[in-house]
Amino acid sequence: MIRISIDVMGGDHGPSVVIPGLAKVAERRTDVRFLLYGKSEEVRPILEKHPKLAAISEFVHCDIAVRMDDKPSQALRHGRWKSSMWKAVEAVKAGQADCCISAGNTGALMAMSKFCLRTMVTIDRPAIASIWPTMRGESIVLDVGATIGADAHQLIDFAILGAAMSRALFGINRPTVGLLNVGVEEIKGQEEVKEAGQLLREAELMSMSYHGFVEGDDFGKGTVDVFVTEGFAGNIALKTAEGTARFIGSLLREAMGRTTMAKIGYMFAKRAFDRLREKMDVRKSNGGVFLGLNGIVVKSHGGTDDEGFAAAVELGYDMVRNGLLDRIEADLDLFHARHPKTMAARAAAEDDKE
Amino acid sequence: MIRISIDVMGGDHGPSVVIPGLAKVAERRTDVRFLLYGKSEEVRPILEKHPKLAAISEFVHCDIAVRMDDKPSQALRHGRWKSSMWKAVEAVKAGQADCCISAGNTGALMAMSKFCLRTMVTIDRPAIASIWPTMRGESIVLDVGATIGADAHQLIDFAILGAAMSRALFGINRPTVGLLNVGVEEIKGQEEVKEAGQLLREAELMSMSYHGFVEGDDFGKGTVDVFVTEGFAGNIALKTAEGTARFIGSLLREAMGRTTMAKIGYMFAKRAFDRLREKMDVRKSNGGVFLGLNGIVVKSHGGTDDEGFAAAVELGYDMVRNGLLDRIEADLDLFHARHPKTMAARAAAEDDKE
Repeated sequence: MIRISIDVMGGDHGPSVVIPGLAKVAERRTDVRFLLYGKSEEVRPILEKHPKLAAISEFVHCDIAVRMDDKPSQALRHGRWKSSMWKAVEAVKAGQADCCISAGNTGALMAMSKFCLRTMVTIDRPAIASIWPTMRGESIVLDVGATIGADAHQLIDFAILGAAMSRALFGINRPTVGLLNVGVEEIKGQEEVKEAGQLLREAELMSMSYHGFVEGDDFGKGTVDVFVTEGFAGNIALKTAEGTARFIGSLLREAMGRTTMAKIGYMFAKRAFDRLREKMDVRKSNGGVFLGLNGIVVKSHGGTDDEGFAAAVELGYDMVRNGLLDRIEADLDLFHARHPKTMAARAAAEDDKE
Repeated sequence: MIRISIDVMGGDHGPSVVIPGLAKVAERRTDVRFLLYGKSEEVRPILEKHPKLAAISEFVHCDIAVRMDDKPSQALRHGRWKSSMWKAVEAVKAGQADCCISAGNTGALMAMSKFCLRTMVTIDRPAIASIWPTMRGESIVLDVGATIGADAHQLIDFAILGAAMSRALFGINRPTVGLLNVGVEEIKGQEEVKEAGQLLREAELMSMSYHGFVEGDDFGKGTVDVFVTEGFAGNIALKTAEGTARFIGSLLREAMGRTTMAKIGYMFAKRAFDRLREKMDVRKSNGGVFLGLNGIVVKSHGGTDDEGFAAAVELGYDMVRNGLLDRIEADLDLFHARHPKTMAARAAAEDDKE
């Protein structure tokens, strides 16, 4: 049985999208139970329309809902201990839930997750991982915006975290890992990326196969299973790809609607277009996974619909089912056992800062 | 009369693409003259097939051609003073040409351009600007990879350079300028981006309208006329967009070729698809423009065909015709006359470094 805690108030549409999304999951998976947190007056009327979902859910009323435009500090101040978002995360910490899903605002969810669950012992900073469709299937990209900048050791943490997620989610035995860099010869890339590359090459980890540097156009090709980068470039890349896909989609719709001949062609090829649309459906890869915390938290897009929210929930479900956290812990232990120097160097670097 | 110097040996295919590309320009523009630099035995036989081009060109033999995989330092060592790339850039410095086009390797071309032309007096670092198709038309993005990282003052330089290019190329009187940032509340963006934003807002420049921060998905929307960022994120974004477009193109081709119905549909809608392909034709926006130097240098994609090379040449032509360099100089003078503090602060920052 997999137990999932849900911040029902999160997202642009709150319970009106979240509850129907959960109902879809309840139809498709038999071994799932939900812990729902939200405002009773908003949640109950919608939940009553889905008796099958209600039967496998426990509902807890919360007075406070974190707003989509709350700053993380505001959200913590008003929402800690009592908001639906906090309660959903706390259920993971308390061992009542195996993972937590929220479509609420990213900054607040990350702040609460860090505060409540804490980062894993050997991890400096959590990362947000995203799943990208590629020519080869799907790849994992991290960090897509948890923090700006990352030193070489943090990039190595991200590589270990992302590789564990790739194994848990896609069953890839030894995923390939690439470090995002720029290929222009003259500039040769950031120092920390170069250092991380050298360390990863020397480490010869069993949990991954280090591929080397990759560039922006490797995302679409799916050159590696796991793309590692710091959060600024990762966030820019993610949003640039989304924006480019939308732009081309709009060009395509415009082209197919312009002439009678094009409209006839569209009718004949409708099934092909449907297939294409399905392949490009961002809802299916909805969900930013917070990695490096003592618990699994999945952030759904705030503006998604019920199918998209269901996808985020099923992403969490799959990762729990495949023992993501245990894999991460085992990989981290193995790495630090074999590379005690890394921890020592990190501690020394920390001392230098103080 | 516009005089353009050409590194005929540059690019993956050298003279076999460059010469036919120039021949296309010669067909379309009457007031252009070329200075061609390359290896006589490779260039002459192809040039002879294009008498109209030959009639408006002067050819200069060079013993050395910079290779596509030369490192900038190698290229400078072997190619300075005598390679076709160097000679083409030097023609701009000597006043024999109004701008220079090369499809040779970016690092080498930038190194030679900096060495030969030098950066403008008030500019720390040159940038590479690229033209992106968007839902609204075309936008300028810089820096897409001249250097990694940029402080607030360098970002302001990029804004001034990009705005001048937008006015020269698209005739936009007061282009909108956005600073690329990440929207996640918690992280709030890089310090230098925030500082640049504040300075640009306070400066109230006549040459541009400062829009504020933009994110990765604003590229596709064309939210602003000029996107400003440092070279690492800019390069990642550019290549991510190119890779995403190729990925979707391949999905579309696959979808249209799978079933008989789809193939029939494709035949009916063929003209619509042709229009779409033309809109997405990367050749048309071929050309990275080096800004901030005492002269105009355009880098064509190394792997482009004759039509793509012609587009890069015509980009240089248009910028010369519209007085890009004079605009940049006037804008920089105006900015520094009104903001003497900026120069003083920059000088102080330089002193601190030493």
